[in-house]
Amino acid sequence: MYKIDLNSDLGESFGAYKIGMDDAVIPLISSANVACGFHAGDPLVMDKTVALCKSTDTAIGAHPGYPDLVGFGRRNLAASPAEVKAMVTYQIGALDAFCKSAGIKMQHVKPHGAMYNMAAKDEALAKAICEAIYAYDKDLILMGLAGSQMLVQAKSMGLKCAAEVFADRAYEEDGTLVARSKPGAMIHDEEEAVSRVIRMIKEGKVTAITGKDVDITADSVCVHGDGPKALAFVGKLRDAFAANGIEILPLTEIVK
Amino acid sequence: MYKIDLNSDLGESFGAYKIGMDDAVIPLISSANVACGFHAGDPLVMDKTVALCKSTDTAIGAHPGYPDLVGFGRRNLAASPAEVKAMVTYQIGALDAFCKSAGIKMQHVKPHGAMYNMAAKDEALAKAICEAIYAYDKDLILMGLAGSQMLVQAKSMGLKCAAEVFADRAYEEDGTLVARSKPGAMIHDEEEAVSRVIRMIKEGKVTAITGKDVDITADSVCVHGDGPKALAFVGKLRDAFAANGIEILPLTEIVK
Amino acid sequence: MYKIDLNSDLGESFGAYKIGMDDAVIPLISSANVACGFHAGDPLVMDKTVALCKSTDTAIGAHPGYPDLVGFGRRNLAASPAEVKAMVTYQIGALDAFCKSAGIKMQHVKPHGAMYNMAAKDEALAKAICEAIYAYDKDLILMGLAGSQMLVQAKSMGLKCAAEVFADRAYEEDGTLVARSKPGAMIHDEEEAVSRVIRMIKEGKVTAITGKDVDITADSVCVHGDGPKALAFVGKLRDAFAANGIEILPLTEIVK
Amino acid sequence: MYKIDLNSDLGESFGAYKIGMDDAVIPLISSANVACGFHAGDPLVMDKTVALCKSTDTAIGAHPGYPDLVGFGRRNLAASPAEVKAMVTYQIGALDAFCKSAGIKMQHVKPHGAMYNMAAKDEALAKAICEAIYAYDKDLILMGLAGSQMLVQAKSMGLKCAAEVFADRAYEEDGTLVARSKPGAMIHDEEEAVSRVIRMIKEGKVTAITGKDVDITADSVCVHGDGPKALAFVGKLRDAFAANGIEILPLTEIVK
Repeated sequence: MYKIDLNSDLGESFGAYKIGMDDAVIPLISSANVACGFHAGDPLVMDKTVALCKSTDTAIGAHPGYPDLVGFGRRNLAASPAEVKAMVTYQIGALDAFCKSAGIKMQHVKPHGAMYNMAAKDEALAKAICEAIYAYDKDLILMGLAGSQMLVQAKSMGLKCAAEVFADRAYEEDGTLVARSKPGAMIHDEEEAVSRVIRMIKEGKVTAITGKDVDITADSVCVHGDGPKALAFVGKLRDAFAANGIEILPLTEIVK
Repeated sequence: MYKIDLNSDLGESFGAYKIGMDDAVIPLISSANVACGFHAGDPLVMDKTVALCKSTDTAIGAHPGYPDLVGFGRRNLAASPAEVKAMVTYQIGALDAFCKSAGIKMQHVKPHGAMYNMAAKDEALAKAICEAIYAYDKDLILMGLAGSQMLVQAKSMGLKCAAEVFADRAYEEDGTLVARSKPGAMIHDEEEAVSRVIRMIKEGKVTAITGKDVDITADSVCVHGDGPKALAFVGKLRDAFAANGIEILPLTEIVK
Repeated sequence: MYKIDLNSDLGESFGAYKIGMDDAVIPLISSANVACGFHAGDPLVMDKTVALCKSTDTAIGAHPGYPDLVGFGRRNLAASPAEVKAMVTYQIGALDAFCKSAGIKMQHVKPHGAMYNMAAKDEALAKAICEAIYAYDKDLILMGLAGSQMLVQAKSMGLKCAAEVFADRAYEEDGTLVARSKPGAMIHDEEEAVSRVIRMIKEGKVTAITGKDVDITADSVCVHGDGPKALAFVGKLRDAFAANGIEILPLTEIVK
Repeated sequence: MYKIDLNSDLGESFGAYKIGMDDAVIPLISSANVACGFHAGDPLVMDKTVALCKSTDTAIGAHPGYPDLVGFGRRNLAASPAEVKAMVTYQIGALDAFCKSAGIKMQHVKPHGAMYNMAAKDEALAKAICEAIYAYDKDLILMGLAGSQMLVQAKSMGLKCAAEVFADRAYEEDGTLVARSKPGAMIHDEEEAVSRVIRMIKEGKVTAITGKDVDITADSVCVHGDGPKALAFVGKLRDAFAANGIEILPLTEIVK
């Protein structure tokens, strides 16, 4: 029996501003990455999102980002490793407060957007993020890009970690994502996207953009809940998992 | 033997902006109220402040405020009880993350500025704050104005609480602070300020602005570290405590 | 021939967060109140909103609010008159920069949310806002609640001003709005709402919640563009205006 | 007779946070770069700073930065040219509002920190900044690093521009500043710093870190007002200017 975690970025509304169909996607996933107020989310939204996840037994993780609300945390910021470590500690604690208050144990941490992408390649940044998590609670699981520096650093310090893969993205031969600016970076065909994920899970392989098959570890697949089309795709993925004997489980059941 | 806690608001620097003589005042107090990033403080400052407190064994509390950095959390804001509860939960967790990462148990929570003043009189606000603290960790101690709604609400829900008094402020007959806008609100004579505090601790009495003696509970005295004069006053207070057989102890030794 | 201005609050999106159907409502109104980045809006949104208004020849006004994005500027904030004056000056200038760069003359200023409501009753606040506008450009028109302190202060300093009325709100006998918390505060019947506005414009009268007819000045009617129902109501209002010989004109054609 | 502008970054206080000795440095300089609320400064501080400059007839310029208060605008941010153009327009307008209200004509615009440094080398960014200024008011002067892309872009679109030099920084052979991380980047000897500036003004030459003399244009020298030592250095520079027949004049008298 194969197993996989399904994760999604959630709790991204802010004050009067609503983003995402959290109510609809939370029951379909096993792990929720909840925004922590820096790039999205606010205390009231965090409280409601944690309650929503609790009601469906969906595991919760912190989704810390750069302090850049207007840029949604997607713009690279030249923060120092010490600054990033402190902002990750801060955001983990802020989200965990809502988990603790709701009687839930927080499961994981997945950095957001530009922080996720920069730390995938920047050793010092990756190390700072992993140190923040480890110092706070060494039972937390770091979720990072499969093959990234984040996973390398986590392993080297004994922090549990999960490799995330993307259904709709092309891969380079070295296992990194093809930059969005390059042609072919996105997999638009849904059938192809589903097949690729199934193969990553069952065979640990993905065909790189060059055509060459490369190894890849898939502990969790990232899905989106920002529209009806995205939700429908999650349904297709779940159906394909069922048809292929792949069980959907939270990270704690996958990363030991 | 009498005993008292000495507390001070700290960790109020922000990025390139420095406020307060934290290095000098932390060794003189028993409880530090550390700003949590909403009205003052930032993740790096919080990290450093917790480390500083740890180095002198000074107990640490969260000092949550309104999200109003430009107003330093001193401007009344008509946030709902639900909003205030969530913002307190958020800030408690954020500071506790630095405590946990440093291997320290957080001791207390003292709301800041306008939140402190509004909650002293507003039952729903006071209740929301106490609920946030209790839900997060029922061993935390709420620090609030002696005689305030915050203490009333804390007691009614079984949350430990500490009554804070001010050396430099005049009191009304009902135990509330004389508004700063009124004449006589501030006690400018340092000898008088010291004597008043000593009497609050030893006799549980203070002379109200009307001249009438009223009852007051003093678990903690608030002192400032924002300049040499303020620091000198802390020294005088400590000397007077020693001369009067009053021991300075953290809140956990005072509120049981 | 009667005449009226139709105004709407616009440009309230922020970064990745979208609010409002600006494209649809702008062609239907004569004056747009554009958020200035404190309670809503961001520089890029302001730029686009100004361009949109320019394309339909819709007059533009600044819509300054309190620096409270998470509260959408709807929460009362105890800022001093000097602080409010400065924040209004700042926001007027920020929006005017986009107008100037687009070759447009800014028409008016309408404070937002809590600032609008507080200044309707608070003389010092109303005066501070009017002073900010007058000092910046004495040809700007202040838009404020009909019968409010804002209009009183504007008139007393020679600042042009426009009285705003609401189709969907009940009025007290003194011309102020019935608080939303009171029963009957909202006019839910669209026909009734339209009839009330027509009467305000043609007769200068409105039936207060007590049943008594009171005088009211209507220079501009506030409409919303936050959904299909709101847009449909604007259409009804425009039809009723046409049927009643009421011409829709920007404030500059109404307030001389 | 030689002439030079002396400029300084000012108005960097924020709410309760004070930075800089603006009162002392403003009378010593000819052009003030006033922070606009994104990386430093707030509306009240901007108002006071403009009043201070007016009282000493010091010319005023906008000093726009990235929206990064906690990083003081010193951290590189991957904002798009369109975003940067809009944020510059916004900040120019915000500051100009205080100038207009005080009856002063704003003289120039100097980007701050990371925006200044990134735009010195990034053509698209430099162009976006110059376009923002030109569209707002083509009589404004852009102040940028001598030899930078900002000056190149300004000239190519007919925007007036001023070349800024630094007394305390070493230069590469191509006229760019030696990165602070490199040894020898800072000129610590005050006599040497003064001599270098005098030579830049009189001969248009500076000795690069390699030892080779290179051409440099000096329209303005940046000085600091953040401490007594910095202020004393401004005095030395002024004395040396007087002794060398160099007149201190605002940019409008230097850039025609």
